[in-house]
Amino acid sequence: MNYYSTPIARLIEEFTKLPGIGRKSAQRLAFHVIGLPIEEVEMLASAINEAKLSVKYCNICTNLTDRETCNICNDKKRDRSIICVVEDPRDVVAMEKTKEFHGYYHVLHGVISPLEGIGPEEIKIKELLGRLTENEVKEIVLATNPNIEGEATAMYLAKLLKPMGIKVSRIAYGIPVGGDLEYADEITLSKALEGRREL
Amino acid sequence: MNYYSTPIARLIEEFTKLPGIGRKSAQRLAFHVIGLPIEEVEMLASAINEAKLSVKYCNICTNLTDRETCNICNDKKRDRSIICVVEDPRDVVAMEKTKEFHGYYHVLHGVISPLEGIGPEEIKIKELLGRLTENEVKEIVLATNPNIEGEATAMYLAKLLKPMGIKVSRIAYGIPVGGDLEYADEITLSKALEGRREL
Repeated sequence: MNYYSTPIARLIEEFTKLPGIGRKSAQRLAFHVIGLPIEEVEMLASAINEAKLSVKYCNICTNLTDRETCNICNDKKRDRSIICVVEDPRDVVAMEKTKEFHGYYHVLHGVISPLEGIGPEEIKIKELLGRLTENEVKEIVLATNPNIEGEATAMYLAKLLKPMGIKVSRIAYGIPVGGDLEYADEITLSKALEGRREL
Repeated sequence: MNYYSTPIARLIEEFTKLPGIGRKSAQRLAFHVIGLPIEEVEMLASAINEAKLSVKYCNICTNLTDRETCNICNDKKRDRSIICVVEDPRDVVAMEKTKEFHGYYHVLHGVISPLEGIGPEEIKIKELLGRLTENEVKEIVLATNPNIEGEATAMYLAKLLKPMGIKVSRIAYGIPVGGDLEYADEITLSKALEGRREL
């Protein structure tokens, strides 16, 4: 039985689909939105649409960007000899916040996870290999999350990259094991980067 | 310093403005939205816009509705002699869920709160008085929240309504004092309705 009028019920339904938003939160959000000035509501709705429409993969590192090539890949002052491989665009932000890494990134958009049917072809490994043809890259830092899938993906990449004569390192376990890179504080993440070990 | 491309940063910003959504949650929501199929993103954005555009006040009870008169006010089978006064449209839903109240509602859209500069004119009291001219209403149940502002508003309304010869009652303190009507379970709220006392 539905106690709300259709547009409200529909909005609550839409909010409920978002991660971490339960029924009560969705109701609260819906009534908040209805109570906002019309311009602010339109700003919210258009930000949602535009983010989806204009955001694409960087043609070099596959990070999310609204241009062909992202700001980091366009920055010629960075160190061309080192690439940091992360799972997720949020991890790039986490790394950037440490201000300790001056190379380039590569975003895998996932990890190898046989349980979820995600193999090496489902993540951006092919794109990473494509970047290594010009012999500029001397080191790859594997910064996947320190959990089972992240470790497995790091091992897989190490096996693939070492025969190519590239130094492969793994960020140190400064970050709590089982944790999530995205939620680490800057100092811990800096330590992890500093203590990286060759694989 | 902004680590995200503009459309992502803008979306995160918009989500951060919502109640109960912090920076991390906003990032999580933004990346979730970007990862959704385009149709689902459009559904979310249009639900937001439409809820705002189509929802208005019922011309009788001032509850939110997408028609002139809401479903409850349009229901001729309900008891015309009793009106339950609540603060918020969500409280109507909470009351309806008890299935114990068969009269009509009136939504104040707020409570009297001198601290926040909200006087009797800022909430829908005038509209309530306008409904009492036809002598059909025998009882008004005051179901504002059992906190300082809710009590004050109930007292104010009781003083206003009793000289008009209408029975004025207050829902019982079955709901935990200091609590919020919206979060009460159906049984507690039923008890509160059952034990209402005349003021």
